[in-house]
Amino acid sequence: MTRSKDHKIPAVPREPSSATIISATGGVMSQVIPEKYRDLFNKKAFASLATVMPDGTPQVTPVWIDYDGEQVIVNSARGRRKDKNMQHNSAVALAIIDPDNPYRYLEVRGRVAEITEQG
Amino acid sequence: MTRSKDHKIPAVPREPSSATIISATGGVMSQVIPEKYRDLFNKKAFASLATVMPDGTPQVTPVWIDYDGEQVIVNSARGRRKDKNMQHNSAVALAIIDPDNPYRYLEVRGRVAEITEQG
Repeated sequence: MTRSKDHKIPAVPREPSSATIISATGGVMSQVIPEKYRDLFNKKAFASLATVMPDGTPQVTPVWIDYDGEQVIVNSARGRRKDKNMQHNSAVALAIIDPDNPYRYLEVRGRVAEITEQG
Repeated sequence: MTRSKDHKIPAVPREPSSATIISATGGVMSQVIPEKYRDLFNKKAFASLATVMPDGTPQVTPVWIDYDGEQVIVNSARGRRKDKNMQHNSAVALAIIDPDNPYRYLEVRGRVAEITEQG
């Protein structure tokens, strides 16, 4: 198995993609995103999404994220490893690093509440 | 439990820290880091380290990393959540994003081979 690869995440998806919505109120999430960290969602910040493989080991990849005030939205192409992992095990974690200050970051842990598809 | 925090990773550790060495040859790792990705270890690149919590859910945080040609070295302050997780479950994953091109990244999955302490 290849352990490394170039992985282009298209700004305009070229294949059906699933937007994974992580509830910030349900599951193990205990609070909404604090106001003072919301700027991270307006920056060109990549998040690192950790999912759990079927064998229980972790997987982590960069993703684009958004936040609608209640839920964190993660975009993933359908069929990718992380997409399969999230369908198998809804537990996920995100680290969103401030591109202007790598010592500042937000960690989010929760469970996927909903998986939707956007054209 | 607080789900977000400012987390300063000191360049010069101010408390005993453990350098976590992830074998690139043992465990589930099947290959060494490809030559064409080794530049990432010479850049000011943060990696995102995913570990597994005792309840099986993932955790992810930024870490400083190094590579000695055989093993990836991750620095973590002793007693931090990720340090405890790695002692409990050696399965880890890393995403190292090129700071000059966020679409380019290296993913490493493996098991912690050794935990050492540096003053």
